[in-house]
Amino acid sequence: MNAVNHQWRIARRPVGPAREADFRWQEEPIPTPGPGQVLVHNQFISLDPTNRPWLWEEDTYLPALKIGDVVRGVTIGAVEQSNNPNFPVGTNVVGALGWQDYAVSDGRYDFLTPLPADPNVPATMHFGLFGHIGITAYFGLLDVGKPKAGETVVISAASGAVGSLVGQIAKIHGCRVIGIAGSAEKCRWITEDLGFDKAINYKKESVYSHLKEYCPNGIDLFFDNVGGAVLEDVLSLLALRARIVVCGMISLYNTVGGTLSMPPGPNNLFNLVIKRATMEGFLCLDYWERREEAFKALAAWHRDGKIQYRYDVVEGLKNAPRAMNKLFDGSNKGKLILKL
Amino acid sequence: MNAVNHQWRIARRPVGPAREADFRWQEEPIPTPGPGQVLVHNQFISLDPTNRPWLWEEDTYLPALKIGDVVRGVTIGAVEQSNNPNFPVGTNVVGALGWQDYAVSDGRYDFLTPLPADPNVPATMHFGLFGHIGITAYFGLLDVGKPKAGETVVISAASGAVGSLVGQIAKIHGCRVIGIAGSAEKCRWITEDLGFDKAINYKKESVYSHLKEYCPNGIDLFFDNVGGAVLEDVLSLLALRARIVVCGMISLYNTVGGTLSMPPGPNNLFNLVIKRATMEGFLCLDYWERREEAFKALAAWHRDGKIQYRYDVVEGLKNAPRAMNKLFDGSNKGKLILKL
Repeated sequence: MNAVNHQWRIARRPVGPAREADFRWQEEPIPTPGPGQVLVHNQFISLDPTNRPWLWEEDTYLPALKIGDVVRGVTIGAVEQSNNPNFPVGTNVVGALGWQDYAVSDGRYDFLTPLPADPNVPATMHFGLFGHIGITAYFGLLDVGKPKAGETVVISAASGAVGSLVGQIAKIHGCRVIGIAGSAEKCRWITEDLGFDKAINYKKESVYSHLKEYCPNGIDLFFDNVGGAVLEDVLSLLALRARIVVCGMISLYNTVGGTLSMPPGPNNLFNLVIKRATMEGFLCLDYWERREEAFKALAAWHRDGKIQYRYDVVEGLKNAPRAMNKLFDGSNKGKLILKL
Repeated sequence: MNAVNHQWRIARRPVGPAREADFRWQEEPIPTPGPGQVLVHNQFISLDPTNRPWLWEEDTYLPALKIGDVVRGVTIGAVEQSNNPNFPVGTNVVGALGWQDYAVSDGRYDFLTPLPADPNVPATMHFGLFGHIGITAYFGLLDVGKPKAGETVVISAASGAVGSLVGQIAKIHGCRVIGIAGSAEKCRWITEDLGFDKAINYKKESVYSHLKEYCPNGIDLFFDNVGGAVLEDVLSLLALRARIVVCGMISLYNTVGGTLSMPPGPNNLFNLVIKRATMEGFLCLDYWERREEAFKALAAWHRDGKIQYRYDVVEGLKNAPRAMNKLFDGSNKGKLILKL
């Protein structure tokens, strides 16, 4: 056991991409759990686009953090001390325990959840297929988007943790799938390895004209992780009764204040009327209680070789701020995880 | 019977508000119906915000008109000559027969529909409660918006033909209703006469700060006829699982090309994710087959004094272009109708 608890705390609100100087590295004594609390030793931290809005001044779906707070992050760890019978010593847990080696929790405010003890499932899978990513992709596509066989599905950030899964699930459901990604390698991966029908490299190609070519009958379902210009392009190419599933808007997250300091939005929202289309936001949190439904299906597809999934693991808590930016400069390949 | 058929045709695409010079007044011989066709003598023309997008270069939910075409408009008239057994001479009909005294139709491409012969129902009602307005308000609110008793409903263009009806239906369903309108008289009418809980005069008052005050728990349902800045204000004040019913975006219609030449949209669409909210466009056309369901309910509420409705009737086909602009400068009071 380390003698100290290393932490990243918020030094100031980032302007643009979060830089290391926006965070403060701190060493503290390892905390002692009080009544009803446990001490968790973090082993992995999930790095997700949503981490950036958590640094805004504005509340998101969670309250805004204050300057000086430990950076919020979803972690996997093991219970080392326990005053709570729900989480005995040795239990592996997932929860929002932050960018630090150790955290105390009573399990009420940080989504602390015991992980199933299956030696065949590596811990990192609980950040991917069998974690918030799997829940997001599964319910976002199937429950919110309601794809039908034969429909044309477009996915932005299509090689990302969520997007790559969404596309494969859409293929399993008989859809035509077009992915938008940010490099030739990513486009190759989603088409050749994952079976997407088409890929568009938005850094090199016109998204609008390629979507128009690949979707001659319009876009039935758009699973959007990006927002901004891509959303506007898609809004111009909707099919009748199209659904836009708004999972995220990563192109807009590098702002200081939140939505209030974002650039203007798409000028063609009126196409929602013309096409009788729907745009719906959702969060995996709302599906947490139904997670086993997703995990069961994903496990079966994974076992049958119908779903591939890749991880990008960076080592060392010290590297958390720099690692997080891989999501924003597009250099990550697969689900980004920090190993402590 | 007039010896000639007076018509308004499109002379050029309007830039900004449509002006009389954008139209061409034309006199033609009264047409003769061919096999399967009828000759309809128009008596009333419905003037609606959607008439303006019909002048765009871009297709809307209907194909764009060409320069030189008769201006598209929904009319009420009587069949004067008939070669079609579905529409005998003397039948009153509603259809998209255009800004002209007479039109021939075979009933296939212009939504021609016989009107029930009830001497107690003035013809103009078929443009209001018992027409496309009633269908729009009834299904838009109830089928798309799904209001629940106790919810807070906000309506833009709240004193307009659709908005005034939506608010009253929402009150019947036990909602708190806040209307946004463009004059003190309109605000007085919707609160004192129609029973809205609050009204905001957007020309004099801050929409955002008043909505914030009147909706302390957020906005559950927004019935939007306006788009633009009001939509952005509402997006910042959504309640969890809010629904935005997009009926229209009148603030953006006075453009030449269509959505492609509209100004940028709201910068805070990410609030759809934060609040797990839905934005859905719809058209009354899609509910045309279910219209009797709406008319039956509206007739009962009207008979019981639960719904009031007012008309603003302008006389003379010659005045059509100027009359249409009353919708855009806000000078109409109630459903705008042109009497020929």
